[in-house]
Amino acid sequence: MALIVHKYGGTSMGSPERIRNVAKRVAKWARAGHQMVVVPSAMSGETNRLLGLAKEVSPAVQTPAVLRELDMIACTGEQVSVGLLALALQAEGMEAISYNGWQVPIKTDQAYTKARIESIDDARVRADLAAGRVVVITGFQGIDGDGNVTTLGRGGSDTSAVAVAAAMKAAECLIYTDVDGVYTTDPRVVPEARRLHTVSFEEMLEMASLGSKVLQIRSVEFAGKYRVPMRVLSSFTPWDIAIEEEAKSGTLITFEEDEKMEQAVVSGIAFNRDEAKITVMGVPDKPGIAYSILGKVADANIDVDVIIQNVSHDGRTDFSFTVHRNDYQRTVDLLNKDVVPALGAKEVLGDTKICKVSIVGIGMRSHAGVASTMFRALSEEGINIQMITTSEIKTSVVIDEKYMELAVRALHKAFDLDQPNT
Amino acid sequence: MALIVHKYGGTSMGSPERIRNVAKRVAKWARAGHQMVVVPSAMSGETNRLLGLAKEVSPAVQTPAVLRELDMIACTGEQVSVGLLALALQAEGMEAISYNGWQVPIKTDQAYTKARIESIDDARVRADLAAGRVVVITGFQGIDGDGNVTTLGRGGSDTSAVAVAAAMKAAECLIYTDVDGVYTTDPRVVPEARRLHTVSFEEMLEMASLGSKVLQIRSVEFAGKYRVPMRVLSSFTPWDIAIEEEAKSGTLITFEEDEKMEQAVVSGIAFNRDEAKITVMGVPDKPGIAYSILGKVADANIDVDVIIQNVSHDGRTDFSFTVHRNDYQRTVDLLNKDVVPALGAKEVLGDTKICKVSIVGIGMRSHAGVASTMFRALSEEGINIQMITTSEIKTSVVIDEKYMELAVRALHKAFDLDQPNT
Repeated sequence: MALIVHKYGGTSMGSPERIRNVAKRVAKWARAGHQMVVVPSAMSGETNRLLGLAKEVSPAVQTPAVLRELDMIACTGEQVSVGLLALALQAEGMEAISYNGWQVPIKTDQAYTKARIESIDDARVRADLAAGRVVVITGFQGIDGDGNVTTLGRGGSDTSAVAVAAAMKAAECLIYTDVDGVYTTDPRVVPEARRLHTVSFEEMLEMASLGSKVLQIRSVEFAGKYRVPMRVLSSFTPWDIAIEEEAKSGTLITFEEDEKMEQAVVSGIAFNRDEAKITVMGVPDKPGIAYSILGKVADANIDVDVIIQNVSHDGRTDFSFTVHRNDYQRTVDLLNKDVVPALGAKEVLGDTKICKVSIVGIGMRSHAGVASTMFRALSEEGINIQMITTSEIKTSVVIDEKYMELAVRALHKAFDLDQPNT
Repeated sequence: MALIVHKYGGTSMGSPERIRNVAKRVAKWARAGHQMVVVPSAMSGETNRLLGLAKEVSPAVQTPAVLRELDMIACTGEQVSVGLLALALQAEGMEAISYNGWQVPIKTDQAYTKARIESIDDARVRADLAAGRVVVITGFQGIDGDGNVTTLGRGGSDTSAVAVAAAMKAAECLIYTDVDGVYTTDPRVVPEARRLHTVSFEEMLEMASLGSKVLQIRSVEFAGKYRVPMRVLSSFTPWDIAIEEEAKSGTLITFEEDEKMEQAVVSGIAFNRDEAKITVMGVPDKPGIAYSILGKVADANIDVDVIIQNVSHDGRTDFSFTVHRNDYQRTVDLLNKDVVPALGAKEVLGDTKICKVSIVGIGMRSHAGVASTMFRALSEEGINIQMITTSEIKTSVVIDEKYMELAVRALHKAFDLDQPNT
């Protein structure tokens, strides 16, 4: 008998019928003798509906007072979900009880709409589990030190589930979603993409940050910090499949390097086309340019991803970086207004038609030549690399957007990711 | 400068545009120097939508555990409303903050779906008012001693508003609704029906219990107990009418008998066709029959309204009472099964085609002959009276349903209710 946390996404909770199916699956686990805590998201579409209402009422600037009310409104979707799931579990003959974040409580800081969990008191939940109840806890929600409702940001229910699993030292946190695991890359781009049976949490972290949308990145950070075994699996398998089979399905996110000995050097290919490239040309090459440029960008609350400073010629250099496409115009305007004149730079060039493609693999730590295999594969396809950035376990390149699919397929093949070996 | 509580019904909160209008009206009051607490209902249709989802998920028996989850689900409609209204107020340039019942807190007993308020701590709300904020508090919601969410039952937001007004000793509690006050009777039945400028709380109590749907009866009880001045008025007057005019509109519910000196003997005619009549024929006339019959009915959680025991003949009598039409068949079945054989009664007769018509007036206390005026008016229309029941300030008759409108019109005229005199 183990303590297990299940998390169900909005699609899995998308209708009364699907909620009844979730209840049947949870009941199966409970009847097998497990203590069950379930963290459901809001029904799909609900959070957007609520925030849409808010926008209709008030297209206001986002002051803390406004953000506080947005959280008050948005978090009701999860409250409805926990109530409905508890009802469905009761209809299955289980004892079940639902809690909001504030009832547990799940305490957070006061950063409305993107709060961070500070502590979880599990006494009440443990008492329910001991009394034989299934406990259903809202994802996404928390409460700050002053008793205000907070939310953890989009996808925050993943983080809630992992945080609850960490606080309660759960044996495993199962993230049920509308895909059946983590793939070597997006199967819509590469039909040969394979599901990984295991992936290291560091690889998962890179993949999440690089655009793979399976998990909220903070949930992976949380899982890593507290070493919570976490599995991504499908909520669309029949609810009554054998529990042993279900417990081995999907993708397990591991923390043990040993388990990865037989693992390929590269585990997956991530990509996104959410970014735009900006180059400040002809910047005087002297100490402090990076700060003079990026300091202004950071002050405007714009996140910068890849950063490249070219070799200088005649005391001048070019400075390139990428930002989210939504921030592109704002960044260019800001540079032209505040940075170019102040630095005496030549001009600002921009390109929104780029993409970033990354190879991720914990094996890269100990294998030389991985990056060069990547560069060769892209070169053989005639794809020009505009920017390169590397970390211990990933290498990313920025290329012309139109080559994205071609690059992903070429890399998937170059690293033999279509060959089963995990 | 006074502390004023506004309550807005679901229709008044029915769309983003209407919510913006509510915000404009509240802002007008705040700018006139009043401290404002606002209690909105859920957007119209929302509570039904939520309970409909619950029913789809689980058509289960209503155990306390089920009712707890229904409250968890249903109360989210009010949470959305307070958030939206606070946003709309902020967009009007006001400082505004919203609270759930548990955040105030509004403490209740544990009777899920029909909880009663036990106490309200106003410290947090007072601090916000002192800081110049408009405070928006959920109607309908509370929290029990164990930290569970409760609701006060349908129409409970009226009670929330009056309870908050009582706890904070507000100068007045204004109930904004989709009618512009309390009428001598339903204008759809009697076009000459007049709006009352004032009505005593006892009359309002009778009218509410007799089927006038303007206010939840418990809110009137609360107002009476704590002597909260309460006004029913329309939320569909233009929001920018002069505040002095608005403050005198609608119907004031008063507690001072003096103010009523000039008042008519009868203030209004109430009616409903929600009831059905049941008669147990040929009951042995011995002590304890009422209990033998109604005890069983009460055990089945069926509310009984009018009760009549006829004069006995030859040691046997007939015992009649009315129940809600929804409970009619269940009551008849129960009597046939458990009561008729046990008592040796003759049979059970029933009639669902009845209605109850009542005259209400605080002046009835000190005026003789009011009931006989009523009976004469009905007799002149050839309407047969089946049952009569009286209290200090009302007289009700049960008659054939088909005569309902005729009876209401005849009584409205007989008591000169179409003549302005308040």
